Order: sequence, then C-alpha cells, then structure tokens
Amino acid sequence: MEFVPELIKRGKRVIDLSADFRFSDASKYEAYYQPHTAKDLLEKAVYGLCEVYSDRIKSADLTGNPGCFPTTVLLPLVPLLKERFLEVNTIIADSKTGVSGAGRSLSLVSHFCEANESLKPYKAAAHRHCPEMEEVLSLEAGEPVAITFVPHLVPMTRGMETTIYASLARDADPEDIRSCMTSFYSNRPFVRICPDDTLPDTGNVRGSNYCDIGFKIDEKNNRLILMSVIDNLVKGASGQAIQNMNIMLGLDETKGLNHLPFPV
Amino acid sequence: MEFVPELIKRGKRVIDLSADFRFSDASKYEAYYQPHTAKDLLEKAVYGLCEVYSDRIKSADLTGNPGCFPTTVLLPLVPLLKERFLEVNTIIADSKTGVSGAGRSLSLVSHFCEANESLKPYKAAAHRHCPEMEEVLSLEAGEPVAITFVPHLVPMTRGMETTIYASLARDADPEDIRSCMTSFYSNRPFVRICPDDTLPDTGNVRGSNYCDIGFKIDEKNNRLILMSVIDNLVKGASGQAIQNMNIMLGLDETKGLNHLPFPV
Amino acid sequence: MEFVPELIKRGKRVIDLSADFRFSDASKYEAYYQPHTAKDLLEKAVYGLCEVYSDRIKSADLTGNPGCFPTTVLLPLVPLLKERFLEVNTIIADSKTGVSGAGRSLSLVSHFCEANESLKPYKAAAHRHCPEMEEVLSLEAGEPVAITFVPHLVPMTRGMETTIYASLARDADPEDIRSCMTSFYSNRPFVRICPDDTLPDTGNVRGSNYCDIGFKIDEKNNRLILMSVIDNLVKGASGQAIQNMNIMLGLDETKGLNHLPFPV
Amino acid sequence: MEFVPELIKRGKRVIDLSADFRFSDASKYEAYYQPHTAKDLLEKAVYGLCEVYSDRIKSADLTGNPGCFPTTVLLPLVPLLKERFLEVNTIIADSKTGVSGAGRSLSLVSHFCEANESLKPYKAAAHRHCPEMEEVLSLEAGEPVAITFVPHLVPMTRGMETTIYASLARDADPEDIRSCMTSFYSNRPFVRICPDDTLPDTGNVRGSNYCDIGFKIDEKNNRLILMSVIDNLVKGASGQAIQNMNIMLGLDETKGLNHLPFPV
Repeated sequence: MEFVPELIKRGKRVIDLSADFRFSDASKYEAYYQPHTAKDLLEKAVYGLCEVYSDRIKSADLTGNPGCFPTTVLLPLVPLLKERFLEVNTIIADSKTGVSGAGRSLSLVSHFCEANESLKPYKAAAHRHCPEMEEVLSLEAGEPVAITFVPHLVPMTRGMETTIYASLARDADPEDIRSCMTSFYSNRPFVRICPDDTLPDTGNVRGSNYCDIGFKIDEKNNRLILMSVIDNLVKGASGQAIQNMNIMLGLDETKGLNHLPFPV
Repeated sequence: MEFVPELIKRGKRVIDLSADFRFSDASKYEAYYQPHTAKDLLEKAVYGLCEVYSDRIKSADLTGNPGCFPTTVLLPLVPLLKERFLEVNTIIADSKTGVSGAGRSLSLVSHFCEANESLKPYKAAAHRHCPEMEEVLSLEAGEPVAITFVPHLVPMTRGMETTIYASLARDADPEDIRSCMTSFYSNRPFVRICPDDTLPDTGNVRGSNYCDIGFKIDEKNNRLILMSVIDNLVKGASGQAIQNMNIMLGLDETKGLNHLPFPV
Repeated sequence: MEFVPELIKRGKRVIDLSADFRFSDASKYEAYYQPHTAKDLLEKAVYGLCEVYSDRIKSADLTGNPGCFPTTVLLPLVPLLKERFLEVNTIIADSKTGVSGAGRSLSLVSHFCEANESLKPYKAAAHRHCPEMEEVLSLEAGEPVAITFVPHLVPMTRGMETTIYASLARDADPEDIRSCMTSFYSNRPFVRICPDDTLPDTGNVRGSNYCDIGFKIDEKNNRLILMSVIDNLVKGASGQAIQNMNIMLGLDETKGLNHLPFPV
Repeated sequence: MEFVPELIKRGKRVIDLSADFRFSDASKYEAYYQPHTAKDLLEKAVYGLCEVYSDRIKSADLTGNPGCFPTTVLLPLVPLLKERFLEVNTIIADSKTGVSGAGRSLSLVSHFCEANESLKPYKAAAHRHCPEMEEVLSLEAGEPVAITFVPHLVPMTRGMETTIYASLARDADPEDIRSCMTSFYSNRPFVRICPDDTLPDTGNVRGSNYCDIGFKIDEKNNRLILMSVIDNLVKGASGQAIQNMNIMLGLDETKGLNHLPFPV
C-alpha cells in the first residue's frame, strides 16, 4: 500500500501479492495487520479469487491476490454457500501447510532440524487469514459467516491441504454436491473435482496451478467433509497472480500455467 | 482372538495389541473388521486406555490395547465429557499420522517416493478406529456420541496429532478447561497439559510415551479446540502396552518408559 | 532383448532403457546380469550418451540408453581422459542417489520409514553399473580403465550426485580443466560447467535434463575432484531417452526437454 | 580458549567442545581458524578420541573433543595405519552429513526448503576438519599423511557417513582387515565392526554413541574401502564429550551412554 497509490495514479494496473487490498473493510485488515494507509483504494480493489470473481477482475485496476489458506477454503465453500447447502455457523477448516508457507526469511520454525519429522498446530483460531476468508464467505452466503480455522505446519516443502467440516442445511446426496461443484467450475480449468471415492493429494498438484477438491458426506452426522489441495507457491501465490494477470489482460487464463504437476 | 482363549484358559493374563478385544459390542467390531470368534471374552476384556481405566486394568486378565488414533482422541475428550463441557453431537476429530502408522508391510502408500513431499486425507468418515472411539465416548458421556473422524497421511516417520473441535455446552473460560484436565490427569505421568499459549508439537513426544494436550477456546464460535500429540509407535502402540503391563503387574506404571523424548 | 530383435527386423529404430544394449562386450553384461540372447545386435547398438556419441546416435537403429550412475561418472571424465589429464588407474567414484533410483517396485529399502533419516552405502565395488562405466572409459582413454565405484542411498526422492577423485597425470591449473570441459561441451545445452568457486547441487537440476559439473584441484595431493549432479529420473533415464530420440530423428535435441528445473 | 586458561589455573579439568585444543601445532589451527591465544596449553591438551587415546585422557586436565568428521575418518583408519596396511598418500575421505551438522544458528543452508530434497558437496578439499585429521593420521602412521576430504550435505537431521578409499600397501584379505580392527577395538564398547557382507547405515546408530565400521576390498584395484557411521550429535559431539568425562573421572566409559540407538 506504500507504492500502489502512486502506480494507480499513473494509470498502471496492479496485482498486489500482499494482504493490503484483500479486504473491503479496512477495520478487519487493521485488526490483524497494521494501520491501512490507502483506504480510498479498497473500494476499487477486487479480490483476486480467479474462479469466483473473474468478471470483476477483468476490468480491475487493482487486484488483491488471495492468501494461500483462503484459496483452499473458499474454492470448495463458495459454490455450496451460494446454493445454501450448508449451515453457515458450523464451518470448521483444518489446514496443513508445507514449510515454504512460512516464507524464505530465516527463523527457527523453518530450520530443517526443527521442521523435519515434526507436525504442529499454530495460531489456532487466531490466524490473520481467517477474517479474509470470513469476509468473502459472508458476502457469498448473504449473511455473516464466522468459521473456526486452525493451521498446522507439516514437514514438506510445498503443498497445502484443507479439510472443511460443515453441517448440511438440507438433504443432499453425493450427486447433489458434485453437481453443484462441477457446474460452478464447469469452465474453470484449474479446479478439478475428484472422482467418486477419490480424495485429493497434494502430490497431484505439486508445481501446478490446480486446486483439487474432494468431498464425503458423513451421513451419520449429516455433515459434509470437503478436502482441497493446492501448491501454496503456485495457486496459493504467484500462480494465481499470473492467472489474474491473464484475466486482466484478456489472455487465455492458463497462459504460462498450463504445465503438468511435478510428480514424485 | 485366535490364540487368546487358550491363553486365558491356561490362566495367563493377556494384553492384546490388535483390535479384537477393544470393543464390548461385537457387532461394532464385526462391522469394520471380521466375524468375532471369541465373543464370550469381550465382557471380560478391559479397554486399555491407561489414564482412564487403570483401576479396571489392574485386575484385568485381558486388556485390549487402544488404537493410536483413539488414544489421541479419547485422552483430551474424556475429562471434558465427564464434566459435560461439550455438546456431544458436535465433535469433529481431524488426525494426522506419520507413515509408520501404516505399518511395515509393503505397499505403494508407504513407498518413500509416494509418501515424501505429499499429504493426503484417507478413509474420511470411514476409518475403523471411529467406532472404537465412539464406544468409549458414549460410555463416558452417558449418552450416545457420534463423531466425524478424518485421518491424514503426513510425510514423517513417527508422530500423530489430532485436532478436535466441539461446541461448548456451557460457559467456560480457559481456566475451567485447564482445571478439568489437570485435575483428571493430576497423578498421570504420561499426560502433559501444555502451558497457556503453547500448542503441542509431535517433536516434543517423539520416542516417548507422553501424550501432550493443548487447547484453545474459539470464543467467536463458542467452540473448544483440543490438540493432542503422541508418538504413534509408543503411546499409540507398544508403549501403552508396556504401561498396561506395568499396571497389571502392580509395578510403577513408568517402568521401562521413563526415558526422555528423542529431540530433533 | 526379448522384443528388440523383432522390432529391428521390422525396420523400427529402438531406444532401449534397459542395460541389454549398453555393452559391446556381452561377457561383461553376462557377468552382472544374465545370459544375453541377442548378441548379434550388440555390434549394431550405440551407447546413448548423447553429449559424447551424438554423431553415431544420429544414424543408429538401436540405442542403449545409459544408466543413471554412468551418466554422472562419464560426462565429467570423458573430456579429461581424452586429453590425458588423469592417471587412469586412480579413478574413484562415490555416488549418492535418491530413493527413486531404486525403482517403484516394493521393497523394504524403499519403505518410507526405512529410507527416511538414514544414509547407507550399498554394493560397494560390486554394482553392475561399474563395468558399463569402465567399458566407455577404456574406449575413451585408449587403454584399460578400472575404477572403484561405491553408491550410497540418500533420503530424498530424486537426485543423484557423484564425486570423482583422480590423480592428475600432468600439471594442470583450474583454467586448463575448465577449458577442457567447456570446449568439449561448448554446443551441448544440457551440460553446464559450474562457475569458479561454485559446486553443483542436485536441487539445481531437479526435474530437468541438465547435468551440472563442478571441480576442484586438491593441490596438496595433485588430485582432481569432479562433482556432477543429475535428476536420475530425467537425464539419468527417460529424459536422456527423449534426447536420444530427438537426435535420432534429426530434431533439436532439446525438444520436449527445454523446461526449467523445478526449484525448492 | 578465552575461558580455559583461567579454569585450568583454578585446578579444574576441562573438556572443550570447540576446535581450540584439538591441535598440537598452533599454526595448523591458525591457518583455518583464528589466532590462538592459549598456545601454552596445547602441549598439555590431549586429543579426545576416546578409543585411541584413553590412556592419556585418563589423566588429562584438558581434553580437546574431536570434530564429527574426524571421528568418522580416524576410527577406521588408525588401526590400519598403525599396522601399515595402507599407502598413506592415497587416502580419500568422502563424507555425508545431516543438516544438524551445520548447527542451530540460522542460515539459508539450513532452511528446510533449501536443504530438503537436495544434496550438495561443499568446501571440497578446503574443510577445516581436514588438518585436524591429518595431524592425528601422521602421528599414528609415523610419517606425514595428507588426505583428500570432501563433505556433502544430505537432507536428514542427524547422521554422518564417511566412505574412505586407500590403496593397500601389502597383500591383505578380508580376514586380515577384520582381525586388525576387532583386536584394536576389542574392549571398546562403542565401536562395532559390521559382520561380513554388511555395510553400515546411519539409521543403526541414530541417537547413540556407536561408531559402526564396515569395509570392502576392491580386489581389482587393490584398494580398501572403509565405511563408518555415527550420530554426529552424539559420538560426533556431546556423546564423545561425556565418554571423555567418564574416562577422566575413572567411571565406566559407557555411563549415561548405554542406551540403544533410536530406530526408524
């Protein structure tokens, strides 16, 4: 937000990788980050979740590229919230991230000997990506949505998985859920709904811009379980930024991103 | 169950590491495993969750050693259910296990190149450890408890973490939760409640028989988050079996188990 | 060798990934593998080390794709042997390979919990890739060359590094060595000689067809140290096969292979 | 060396974990480290390689605890040099170390995402542990010994393996080598010579004070291959310091160290 106002003034179009332009409500940003010094731009800014807001992104001058955790939480939930499948006050998201999610700066948390062979939750119900998710979820649900979000650090370099739990608001069988997802993402090349009886694996999206989504209905508890995976460094960061650039420039949105995942 | 009846007949006392004597209700066992061929012993068998059932284990002739996932789910929940802190129909357990949890037999899932740098959920709401948990939870809650349980495979050798989500049934502040846990486990050397603002880490229990438990109240949603870690090969298997043996033989229950965790 | 004779008879051109057509001397093959059932084809077969034998590969009907270890040993040594820089009876190659080098078939060696956090030498001075190396080295040196070769298994998925030690046969300074290597590989896009004071890292070639080579003169002992890295699944296997195909078909040899390494 | 003179003056006995008192020749220390400020103590100091110098360590007031790499190089070589099995000018040591060898201080080299899935040589023929090895080897061989030493960084937390290559100075069969080693280490509980056809594995010594040594004669080249493994944080550092303390205090040298390795 230090540089963006000047860039916008000069007529440049900006995709911002930080959290500065992800919120429409500055107070939510300020509660988790810092004082916002370019509030007048927030109204102009579009939240860059490509598969949900591409229409607005097309003409945006300023796109706030989503956080990695929000991408894994929002892509599975948005279609289902729009069709009112879920009890909005029951949503819980349990995320697991590789160490690259902690960035390249040096800290004991990222030291090989600390991270290797260890798994730990952190910032339980206190992570700053949570209000970012809630703002979008509330918008799409048409009512206030508060969720419980707990991230966990896992000993791998890349990859992020989120398992989401929510009570079903109405009767639904697997075909209803699948149909809701596949129709919402019918023309979106980077969201893949897993086939029946298949669950997503971060290894299947490594190095790619894909978000794979699987689900299971826990009938006994009338609860839906959603599982999503991304490569946090691609769809969770720069890959999605490139996709946003493609959309803003009117290019094919897969340009530069249509390589295969990196297996093994 | 093939050998145990003969051993019991000969007056031997048995700790069984399989699932065969973990259930009091044979039909639940049979729904997930196989026909039970020693049903008459089920009444005699004691569920070997040391910190909860030591009184009964002391005099047991047959102890069914708990599964690894149930150990991480039951130890945090039992004290709170006993004191009715939780809405029993809201419990969700999200577990993460190292690859040793899949055993030493050869399968592609345990191949280094498949497991390394990958994380995946499996058997969502369909794992056979779930009914084992529910039987104990129902007993302790005094009413039927059904939970949603999803395990995930993580690229590390040892270690298991479970994050549990449940709505609070009544007003509770952190001190209430802490007090409930610490008084229940006051004389139990292998359960450690994490200090305030500290969450458990599988690295802190590696190679040891400890179960570390942390918690956080998500006030916004009136939900309790419990996090527990064990070494699945020790407290989750043979370590707990040794502890059961110590209890059955009237020895100090820490005998052979009072070494430090293996750090780094 | 079971299928290839029929394919050749039908006029097909073949690149064989097995060891069956890597040797010109069948007895060396048979000493380490099995009886050779297509010996008459050995004379016809060309050893597919692209950067050394591309002239012959161009017109070959049958190419024996090199092993992964030989690729890391031969590429650094061939230029220096050709110019007689090295005492041929002093060559020692110490290789380290990721677990994917052991293949996808199931074995305890590749079990995550066996391979993880462990490093071990195996088949010291007894690996079947050694005679494959020696045949080529002898040919290029113009005299019999016997080497000592010890592979080691390392807890990573992809990547292979070989450190080679050999006494210098004549005075040489770093510029002489560098000049020999860079002129030999001047038009070869997949061999990169590391800059001064830089040593190769398997992470720099991951997912790519590159072979990076570094060196250091141990002046005190008048010994040259050569270090090479490849991705064993690309330059060490299928990548080199594609490169051979490109050469055989008269295509640009980088076709399908000119992507960047996969960092992090 | 800043504190030790004062401690010695006060009559304390010291085991120093740094390199300050490992050398008898201060100029060698200064060539790789820094100006030595307590040179008068060097004559008094004993090199703390327990299995070789225990007689002198017993009565030492100042013991310089060996480096991790030197421990893996010296333990296999000393018995063979003493009996003149090896051509002293042909010794090459290729070491591989886990990331904990780089210490706990923060650096990009130890960042999980840099170290993971990568292997690299470093400080080829330029590591400061080399002169430490050469001083002891020269002493034991009774003539100047210069070696080539190249360390490699491997993606695991603990563990160090060194493969040593040297030409045999006289006819020797495996029994001669084994006999030399086992008689030298006959009463030394922490050195284990691997059985025939077995090579050492860092996984077998993890968490323990053992040094396992294997060997293979490369008959074709009349060369001996020695392979040794330690846990760099135990036998390679604090474990050996404790062993030195036990020896200095006249205790059983295994005191506090006689636990099993940490498997898996």
